[in-house]
Amino acid sequence: MQAIRWRQDALDLLDQTKLPQEEIWHTYQTAHDVAQAIRDMKVRGAPAIGTAGAFAVAVEANRLQGSNNLRAQLLQAVAHLRQARPTAVNLNWAMDRMEAVIAATDDDTKLAEALYAKALQIAQDDLRVNRAIGDAGAALFETGVRILTHCNTGSLATTGYGTALGVIRSLHANGQLTHVFADETRPYLQGARLTAYELLHEGIPFDIVTDSMAGHLMQQQMVDAVVVGADRIAKNGDTANKIGTYALAVLARYHGIPFYVAAPTSTIDLATTSGADIPIEQRSAREVTEIFGQSIAPVGATALHPAFDVTPGELVTGIITEFGVVRAPYEESLPALLKEEF
Amino acid sequence: MQAIRWRQDALDLLDQTKLPQEEIWHTYQTAHDVAQAIRDMKVRGAPAIGTAGAFAVAVEANRLQGSNNLRAQLLQAVAHLRQARPTAVNLNWAMDRMEAVIAATDDDTKLAEALYAKALQIAQDDLRVNRAIGDAGAALFETGVRILTHCNTGSLATTGYGTALGVIRSLHANGQLTHVFADETRPYLQGARLTAYELLHEGIPFDIVTDSMAGHLMQQQMVDAVVVGADRIAKNGDTANKIGTYALAVLARYHGIPFYVAAPTSTIDLATTSGADIPIEQRSAREVTEIFGQSIAPVGATALHPAFDVTPGELVTGIITEFGVVRAPYEESLPALLKEEF
Repeated sequence: MQAIRWRQDALDLLDQTKLPQEEIWHTYQTAHDVAQAIRDMKVRGAPAIGTAGAFAVAVEANRLQGSNNLRAQLLQAVAHLRQARPTAVNLNWAMDRMEAVIAATDDDTKLAEALYAKALQIAQDDLRVNRAIGDAGAALFETGVRILTHCNTGSLATTGYGTALGVIRSLHANGQLTHVFADETRPYLQGARLTAYELLHEGIPFDIVTDSMAGHLMQQQMVDAVVVGADRIAKNGDTANKIGTYALAVLARYHGIPFYVAAPTSTIDLATTSGADIPIEQRSAREVTEIFGQSIAPVGATALHPAFDVTPGELVTGIITEFGVVRAPYEESLPALLKEEF
Repeated sequence: MQAIRWRQDALDLLDQTKLPQEEIWHTYQTAHDVAQAIRDMKVRGAPAIGTAGAFAVAVEANRLQGSNNLRAQLLQAVAHLRQARPTAVNLNWAMDRMEAVIAATDDDTKLAEALYAKALQIAQDDLRVNRAIGDAGAALFETGVRILTHCNTGSLATTGYGTALGVIRSLHANGQLTHVFADETRPYLQGARLTAYELLHEGIPFDIVTDSMAGHLMQQQMVDAVVVGADRIAKNGDTANKIGTYALAVLARYHGIPFYVAAPTSTIDLATTSGADIPIEQRSAREVTEIFGQSIAPVGATALHPAFDVTPGELVTGIITEFGVVRAPYEESLPALLKEEF
């Protein structure tokens, strides 16, 4: 299962706002349109928007080949893509790499090819990295494991396989997994729509639960571990992820249940000292008060819509990366980790 | 605002499954049909189903007047109504009172009148009790208070005024209230649909939030207290309430925020020793996977739907009743409270 398909002159994205009712692919031929698709959450998930952003730059370079201010236009496209969504750092991480290719390529006629090669490498690395995260995560557990997860962190949120859902895939492949509880993840319902879609596809046993049921399930001793993804991990382990993650971390701590974050090292941002420095995207209230275009609230009602929250590193049992699992003190373990090579 | 209207020969209920989009009243002339309306959540909220159940018995007595096995049929209706929903104790509490009237009325020709008088008293008491709860709750706070609440506990959930929402009404009337955060309360969306409807009607400032945002709001120091209702309070203070309440109690404790339960003494069930003895209603998975009849999950996906959870008394800062606020140890304070008279 894959939600991003690429070629040199176009990027195809599976529209995640329409899943699972409709499987609609859109074709994008400009960086501007990809930025809009990221903003509209047609593609979402921190690693996936990094990959989509990288191909957007490659497609833009292909489109503008021969233009006499190619380099300036590409740098402008990169800057524009960076602003599509503020919280996840992977998009910035990918843009840093595309900018480095632009800087390192003297010959304008070779830019399109070089940028496409880099985007391809980012995509292939992400897939490889996710499988390594899955293996590292699965190694944390014995058998008969029941995992609660939040949002969608699978093939749809990455180039393929997934981060937290990659751990679940690996657990299932190893015969270690008993059951998954998939938080529906309001307001966008990524759990009910996307995670359920992937789990059904893989034949992994699961139930959808409302976000409000997680505490009750833990109280009833039905959950062995919580595994979630991340949009940005600060140097001290503070983790920005989909709204509702922080509450899960508090509940897990209260019940003595391990709480793991699964993320590639491209999600770790040592330049961000702590969660206080992570910008939290505030999205439209209508995304809360309407579901599939139908209003669920009375006319005139207002709503808040912080799209992410920050879980303090002290509530994170471990961070599962492609290099293995790191633990507190994160100020030391995360910088040490980023010195490794994959 | 009122969702229950009564007369001797019929009960009118405002259909709460259709609010706020449509304001539809249904008329019920048999106990059996009222039991079905309670099961279908056309009327919901622990005190409201107590009142509706009482009038159902009165209406049934009126309808069957002159029948030669009136008494047996009424006792059967009472038994049937008791089973409509298992968790809230107020329905049983009201049925106990109706049964006592049947037992105390020797003359069959006087049963209809006596039962209607008792139902009327239950309704009027509930309204009076709710105002007393509101006052007792408001007295707990200074000014500038920001309250987070869950589900709907207002005029729609009671005979009128409300329990937790009654506290909010009183705080607002006294000028003590700054803001309300209304959990949307999945899966039935009682917060987004019903609480928002009442708060708008009263001009009380509020925002709807998804259930998953509560932890983040507490972390951001935006919440001064959590106030919720109850469906049943056991002798030790363990409180069954709408699914998601328990998680709020854990989050409140973690953040050092007071967590209050507002409920009439008819919700306190000394015969239930602890929360372990409270039956938790398991409702249909389709109520989770469909919103207003539209599927939000892929075909074949399953879901869990415990409609309630139990918050241990040790997480409850205080229980706000019509006789004032009681605190731990509840094994002592609750029995003492029930000896009082209103």
